[in-house]
Amino acid sequence: MNHFRILIDCADQKGLVFKISKLFYELELNILSNNEFVDSENKKFFMRTVVEGDIEEQTLQEALERVLDENVNFHVVSPSAKNIVLMVTKESHCLGDILIRYEAGELDANIIGVVSNYELLKPLVEKFNIPFYCVSHEGLDREAHEAKVLECLRQFEEIDYIILAKYMRILTSNFVDAYQDRIINIHHSFLPSFIGANPYKQAYERGVKIIGATAHFVNNDLDEGPIISQDVISVSHDHGWKDMQRSGRDVEKVTLSRALKLALEDRIFVHKNKTVIF
Amino acid sequence: MNHFRILIDCADQKGLVFKISKLFYELELNILSNNEFVDSENKKFFMRTVVEGDIEEQTLQEALERVLDENVNFHVVSPSAKNIVLMVTKESHCLGDILIRYEAGELDANIIGVVSNYELLKPLVEKFNIPFYCVSHEGLDREAHEAKVLECLRQFEEIDYIILAKYMRILTSNFVDAYQDRIINIHHSFLPSFIGANPYKQAYERGVKIIGATAHFVNNDLDEGPIISQDVISVSHDHGWKDMQRSGRDVEKVTLSRALKLALEDRIFVHKNKTVIF
Amino acid sequence: MNHFRILIDCADQKGLVFKISKLFYELELNILSNNEFVDSENKKFFMRTVVEGDIEEQTLQEALERVLDENVNFHVVSPSAKNIVLMVTKESHCLGDILIRYEAGELDANIIGVVSNYELLKPLVEKFNIPFYCVSHEGLDREAHEAKVLECLRQFEEIDYIILAKYMRILTSNFVDAYQDRIINIHHSFLPSFIGANPYKQAYERGVKIIGATAHFVNNDLDEGPIISQDVISVSHDHGWKDMQRSGRDVEKVTLSRALKLALEDRIFVHKNKTVIF
Amino acid sequence: MNHFRILIDCADQKGLVFKISKLFYELELNILSNNEFVDSENKKFFMRTVVEGDIEEQTLQEALERVLDENVNFHVVSPSAKNIVLMVTKESHCLGDILIRYEAGELDANIIGVVSNYELLKPLVEKFNIPFYCVSHEGLDREAHEAKVLECLRQFEEIDYIILAKYMRILTSNFVDAYQDRIINIHHSFLPSFIGANPYKQAYERGVKIIGATAHFVNNDLDEGPIISQDVISVSHDHGWKDMQRSGRDVEKVTLSRALKLALEDRIFVHKNKTVIF
Repeated sequence: MNHFRILIDCADQKGLVFKISKLFYELELNILSNNEFVDSENKKFFMRTVVEGDIEEQTLQEALERVLDENVNFHVVSPSAKNIVLMVTKESHCLGDILIRYEAGELDANIIGVVSNYELLKPLVEKFNIPFYCVSHEGLDREAHEAKVLECLRQFEEIDYIILAKYMRILTSNFVDAYQDRIINIHHSFLPSFIGANPYKQAYERGVKIIGATAHFVNNDLDEGPIISQDVISVSHDHGWKDMQRSGRDVEKVTLSRALKLALEDRIFVHKNKTVIF
Repeated sequence: MNHFRILIDCADQKGLVFKISKLFYELELNILSNNEFVDSENKKFFMRTVVEGDIEEQTLQEALERVLDENVNFHVVSPSAKNIVLMVTKESHCLGDILIRYEAGELDANIIGVVSNYELLKPLVEKFNIPFYCVSHEGLDREAHEAKVLECLRQFEEIDYIILAKYMRILTSNFVDAYQDRIINIHHSFLPSFIGANPYKQAYERGVKIIGATAHFVNNDLDEGPIISQDVISVSHDHGWKDMQRSGRDVEKVTLSRALKLALEDRIFVHKNKTVIF
Repeated sequence: MNHFRILIDCADQKGLVFKISKLFYELELNILSNNEFVDSENKKFFMRTVVEGDIEEQTLQEALERVLDENVNFHVVSPSAKNIVLMVTKESHCLGDILIRYEAGELDANIIGVVSNYELLKPLVEKFNIPFYCVSHEGLDREAHEAKVLECLRQFEEIDYIILAKYMRILTSNFVDAYQDRIINIHHSFLPSFIGANPYKQAYERGVKIIGATAHFVNNDLDEGPIISQDVISVSHDHGWKDMQRSGRDVEKVTLSRALKLALEDRIFVHKNKTVIF
Repeated sequence: MNHFRILIDCADQKGLVFKISKLFYELELNILSNNEFVDSENKKFFMRTVVEGDIEEQTLQEALERVLDENVNFHVVSPSAKNIVLMVTKESHCLGDILIRYEAGELDANIIGVVSNYELLKPLVEKFNIPFYCVSHEGLDREAHEAKVLECLRQFEEIDYIILAKYMRILTSNFVDAYQDRIINIHHSFLPSFIGANPYKQAYERGVKIIGATAHFVNNDLDEGPIISQDVISVSHDHGWKDMQRSGRDVEKVTLSRALKLALEDRIFVHKNKTVIF
């Protein structure tokens, strides 16, 4: 018996669920879980079904092609480890959280490399026998540095997701376009509060009573990409901004790892500037 | 166009979704939302679908009867105000929260009466032009008092839900059986912690750092019925048990009102000692 | 035995706590609770002490005057019901939450009036025998309307706090200056996210996964005043903006009532654009 | 300038704060932060003050001895890295979280060893150059195994805290007494719910909607020791118990690390079965 995740998103249309469930019935597939959502504002339909059956991926793919309109966007995914690259700067909490999960076999992923603009986290990464690539930005302008990073990434045959685990440099649209909907960032604030630099300092200055973190896909507007997950933690007047930063790190790492897990399990649909998450 | 909620729960079986979606297609129903869940441990299937169509309830009911096995448990619900009775003792926070929502037209319900073993909350209830029934327990044993409460309730033709909004007396199985899966209680602790009397005092004695509240259906085991919703709030060493009680009240009222809303929208399935909530 | 709350804020200085505790010792005051905070960035000291003793307010006041520098800002508060005015527009959830607490004797306050720019909530307010004043804004510009509201408020001899319990009009600096640090507003977003109009719609458009509410003092910058309390609730892709609004209301009312309680117990210090809360 | 944490707990008595603040004033100490709490039920006073001054620890210690009654329990702590031993079984999430913080220099501690009843986590621990001791329980009864563990621990000159980072064996009172108020455990439930074995399975069977974790000191009653910190996370009907376990792990590790940080900063007072935390 094989397992497949079937992902469908398209304009909402009558009879679609009927067509699909008829096909599953004829193919004698067993439905293990099923999620549907109709975005009534945008008239869009989203579906994620996990099935098992005595069928090959290719056959299932072709059967769906026969049955579904050509403007129905669908994917058949055979669950397997995805290739991910982590990008970091100097902070280790998000990176470390992912490495510990990785070591425990908790992530259905291969970490094929960690790229950083500093050498600082090399010893940590190499403990886990993962290749570390330092691409220093020193003496380079943004474009020149990014060109070198892109060159470094090009050595990998296939990258499913790039995880910015506290990579503190802004990416140009050139980079973003090369990996559309495949770059996940952790922003150290409860977006859209405190966009930009040093959000904890901004939060401290504003005197907020709760701080947060936001994992989101990266697009060409800084900190404006589709949000995947968010979480928060209470603070009080006796938190200086460094205390906020320390408390915030626990929220950041858990929020990013949660988003990563959702991505690895193909649970995220992106539509315009939002996500649908099953 | 009419709206219906279709609720199905049964042993999991192949082809069920196909049968149902085929019927919806043939009846030209528009699916507004759909939730499914397979409890793989118990091999049970749960489904809640909201449809709209140019069809009468009776016709839809009959069509489903034709298509579905006789051991498939299904309900077609035409959304309309449900009849609810509130039972209270002396505290007004849960009652008040429901009354304010009621007055604002937020609840799809008719509050047909409030029953209490004290007169204390009569003035509050009567402000909202809702009949108040005091059935004092003074001088009566549990059975005798409950017989009088049941007699009071029997005057109402139809009761969809009885909401124990801080009714501080234990119900006998006689009462519970008369309204099975229709009595919702708010327990002032994070169950299964602190079952029984004065949970805030128990929580204080134990020195917990978080307290909570639990809305659940009432069955014959005290505080052991299926849980509908829970919520929590942080406390610290400087909360005496009365402070915990005060803080806890906000959690209680919001948790109970949330459970009530789920019930009024037919979003709760009960299976054995648990709920499935869509 | 009398109870007093002693509130001190001043530039941090050596020996201050010694002076104060010496005085308390000599006056044979019993310290029931004590909170201190040093804002090391601004070199400011904050202190709230609750004492009991066989002493009159006047005597305690004079004793503190003798002992403390003239640039130490201090208040001796004899706990008693504060006078509050509520201002509302059309939504009843925050108003209702306060009224139910008021009726239960939970608030150490006199609600001396409710002012609204609509008649809509008059019936609810009058159930609780509280004077309701409708000051319609129809046909008036902002200044003219506000002048009438101020005139309405002037009939009250003393107002300790004005609570904007979903009052949906922006106040001019004229109004704000008249009641400095005494106007508490509930903003229906997790500030500083979604400043301005219809924050739930903004939150929906942005696709956030958590929404919140913020109770804050009102100053002359819209939604920029010192934050007193904040709280949040999770949402998902299947919340339309009206669902977010509905969920958000529970957060709004609890957050506002919490801020009100802090104010009534003299637990809030305002310094620049922030609060210190004991 | 030296820094000290002064920790005081004793029966509440008039004039105590005066005596202490007088001493601080005379010694020209600068008060960086001060927390006090009076447990009015037990008539107990707790205080934690951080001071800086041009004074030696010994001198400060003696000065306090002179001023304070002999039944006042006080400690002067010179902030420095505490010696901790971690005990683990097979799960790595709590251990890993501590190791990553340790590597980042976030913990004011020396991890002098990790003890386990399995070899499984040896490779992870040794990546961080920390000695790993496997004391297998195979073929040994509880007492015999524990005797070997105690023997292993005795090689360390000084242990400030033993952190049970998912050590899945019950300790005898012999062990607990040897390290009183110095053993911190993470229990994988929201205590006092689900005491004992496999709390996630218990939570799943009970159908709860929120799960949690509890960090507490270990005493001789299983899972009954003083609670240091707790946290929770929402779950739903579609979480099997293994999903609950997975989600719960994030709560466990953050809760334990928070408790560890509190301990390292001398912020926890234990009184009877509770903690006071500043």
